[in-house]
Amino acid sequence: MKKNLVVIGYGGMGAGFHVKNALTSDVVNLLGVYDIDPAKQESARAHGLKTYDSLDAVLTDEQVDLVTVAIPNDDHYDTVVRALKAGKHVLCEKPVAMNSDELDRMIRTAKEAGCIFSVHQNRRWDVDYLAMKAIYESGKIGEVFDIESRIHGSRGIPSDWRCQKKHGGGMMLDWGVHLIDQILMIVPKRIENIYCKLDHVTTAEVDDGFQLHLTFEGGCRAMIEVGTCNFIAMPRFYMRGKKGSALIRDWREPAEIVECTHWSESEVLPVQTAAGLTKTMAPRDFVTTECYAWERPHSDVHDYYRNFVDAIDGKAEQFVTHAQMMRVMRVMEAALASGEQNKVIAFDDTL
Amino acid sequence: MKKNLVVIGYGGMGAGFHVKNALTSDVVNLLGVYDIDPAKQESARAHGLKTYDSLDAVLTDEQVDLVTVAIPNDDHYDTVVRALKAGKHVLCEKPVAMNSDELDRMIRTAKEAGCIFSVHQNRRWDVDYLAMKAIYESGKIGEVFDIESRIHGSRGIPSDWRCQKKHGGGMMLDWGVHLIDQILMIVPKRIENIYCKLDHVTTAEVDDGFQLHLTFEGGCRAMIEVGTCNFIAMPRFYMRGKKGSALIRDWREPAEIVECTHWSESEVLPVQTAAGLTKTMAPRDFVTTECYAWERPHSDVHDYYRNFVDAIDGKAEQFVTHAQMMRVMRVMEAALASGEQNKVIAFDDTL
Repeated sequence: MKKNLVVIGYGGMGAGFHVKNALTSDVVNLLGVYDIDPAKQESARAHGLKTYDSLDAVLTDEQVDLVTVAIPNDDHYDTVVRALKAGKHVLCEKPVAMNSDELDRMIRTAKEAGCIFSVHQNRRWDVDYLAMKAIYESGKIGEVFDIESRIHGSRGIPSDWRCQKKHGGGMMLDWGVHLIDQILMIVPKRIENIYCKLDHVTTAEVDDGFQLHLTFEGGCRAMIEVGTCNFIAMPRFYMRGKKGSALIRDWREPAEIVECTHWSESEVLPVQTAAGLTKTMAPRDFVTTECYAWERPHSDVHDYYRNFVDAIDGKAEQFVTHAQMMRVMRVMEAALASGEQNKVIAFDDTL
Repeated sequence: MKKNLVVIGYGGMGAGFHVKNALTSDVVNLLGVYDIDPAKQESARAHGLKTYDSLDAVLTDEQVDLVTVAIPNDDHYDTVVRALKAGKHVLCEKPVAMNSDELDRMIRTAKEAGCIFSVHQNRRWDVDYLAMKAIYESGKIGEVFDIESRIHGSRGIPSDWRCQKKHGGGMMLDWGVHLIDQILMIVPKRIENIYCKLDHVTTAEVDDGFQLHLTFEGGCRAMIEVGTCNFIAMPRFYMRGKKGSALIRDWREPAEIVECTHWSESEVLPVQTAAGLTKTMAPRDFVTTECYAWERPHSDVHDYYRNFVDAIDGKAEQFVTHAQMMRVMRVMEAALASGEQNKVIAFDDTL
C-alpha cells in the first residue's frame, strides 16, 4: 500500500522535484504540502494541491506516514526532530544538517522514535556517476589510483539563502554533499587525509566553489571540484587506472574509455610539441590501446522513494544509511576546515 | 659575427634539437660535438659532424665561444663549472642543476668568470603558453584567479637515466621545470605557498607525475600537472578570470575564450542534469557571453640562441635570468618536499 507523504517546503526542490516525483510515484501518495510562506502556499493551491496551515497540522495528521523536508538548511534540524518525535518517517533534503553535532542528535532522535530518517542523495541515480562506478568495479582500466569529479557553472552562487552562512549556504554544502557521496560510493576505502581550496570569487561569506582532495588508504586519490565562475566547463568525470583512463565530458554523453592492451611499443619516436621534442608525451600507437564507449547505465530516480518505503516496511535497509550521512558530513567539515586553515587534515575514518 | 658552438652530449636533445637548431641558426656556428659514449661519437661523425676527443679538448679550443650542455642532470654541475672556468659561455639543458645549492655555486662561478650562463627554457616559445600569457595580460577575461597547466602522456617514465633518482630523474625535474617556468612568467606575483601530490604509478624511485598547487599573493592560484599514465589527455591549459574563461585543449589548437559580457540574465530556469534539477549549473544564455578563438601567437625558437648571443655581446639581458633559474629550482624543491611530507609549505619568494 502507498505511504502518505507531505512535502514541507514548496521551493525549488519541494515544488520542482518532490511534489512532481510524488505525483508519478508508485509507492507514495501526496497528501499535501506546507510552506511558511503564504505566497508559496497560494501557489501550491493554484496547482491543485492541499495545503496544511502549520507544521503542527502536518505532524498531528495521523494519516501522514512520512514527510519530505525541503527547506533552508539551517531549519532542517528543528523540523526534522519535531517530525521524528511526532512519529513521522523523515526524508530530508541535503545537506541534512548544518554540522555533524546536529546530525548526531537527529540520528539519535530517529532511533529513539523508531522512524526511518534519511537524506535525499538523489544524485546516486546520476547516470554519469553510475557509469564511473561500474567502470571502477569492472577492472577494465586496471587498479584505479585517481578520480576527478567536477561540476562547473558560470552564474556565481545563487543570491537567495544559499549565499548566506547562517542558512548553510556555500557550494560545499550544496553540491559538495552530492559529489563527495558519489566518490565515497565509488571508492570502498578509508580516507586518510583531506586538503581543500575554497573559492571566494563573487562572495567572501561562503565558498562559491572549491577543489577538494581526498587521499585514501593505499594511495588512491580523488579530486572533487565545484565551480560557479567557469564559463567553459571542464569534463565531468576523469578516472585513471594503471591500465587505462575513462572520461565523461558532459553528463549527457557516455563515458569514453581508452584501455591499454600492450604497455610497450617496439619503438618510440620523439614528437615535436610546440617548441620542443618529447618522447615521454608522444601519443601511443593505436595497436597498443582499445578505445570504446561505455554503455549508459539504466537509472530510475523513483527507486529512492521505493527503497525508503521498503525501509519503513522493514523489507530493506535504507539505501542512504546514517553512517554514510555522517561520513559525508564529517568530510565536508574537514574540507571547510582545511580550506580555511590552508593545511592538510588527517581524517579519522574509523569513527 | 656568428659565435662558435660545441654541443656536449649527443643524445635526445643534443642530437635531436641543439645540433639541428645550430645548423639552421643565424647566430651560431656549430664547430662540433662531444659525447662520452663512443657509439654516439661515431653516430655524430656518421652525420658529418666533427667530434672532439674529450671535454678538455673542447674547453681548450680557443675557437669555441659557447657550449651547450645536454647530458644527464647529475653531470650538469661539473661540466658547466669546468666550462665556465675555461671562459666558455654556457647554455645548459634543464633542469640546470640537481638542487639550488649546486645552482648557487654555478651562478657564482659564471659571475666570477664573466661568462653568460643560462638554462634552455625553450618552452617559453610554446605557442600554447604564449597564447595564455597574452590572454592573461589582455584583461579580456577579467582578473585571473586560477590557471591550470597540464601535460599528459601514457608511456610511464622513460626507462633510461630519467627513472633514476641519482641522475636527477622524475617528472618534476623533467617537465615540471618547464611548466613552472611558464606559470611564473604568466603570473607576475609572489608565491605564498605550495602544495604538491606526487605520482608513483610505475615506479617508487622518482615521481612519474605530480599535481602542484601554487598560491600567489592576492589569492591567484595555479595548478601544474604532469602525468605519464593518462591514456586520455585532459586539456593543456585552462584559465579562469572573473569575467570569462580560456581553454586550450591541445597545443595544436588555438585558445577558446568565453567572455562574459552581461553577468545577469532576466530569468534563470532550473535545468535537469542527470538525476536532479539545478539552477546554479544551468548553462548561460548565449546573449550574455561572447565565444571566440584567440589567434595563435608567432613564435621562433631560434630567438633563444639569438638572445643568448646578444647577451654575450652585451646587447641584451639574458632572457632566462639567474634569478628566474633559481626561483624555478626552489619551487621544485619545495614541491618535492611538500609531496614527500604531504603538507602545505610556505614559500619565501623574497630571496
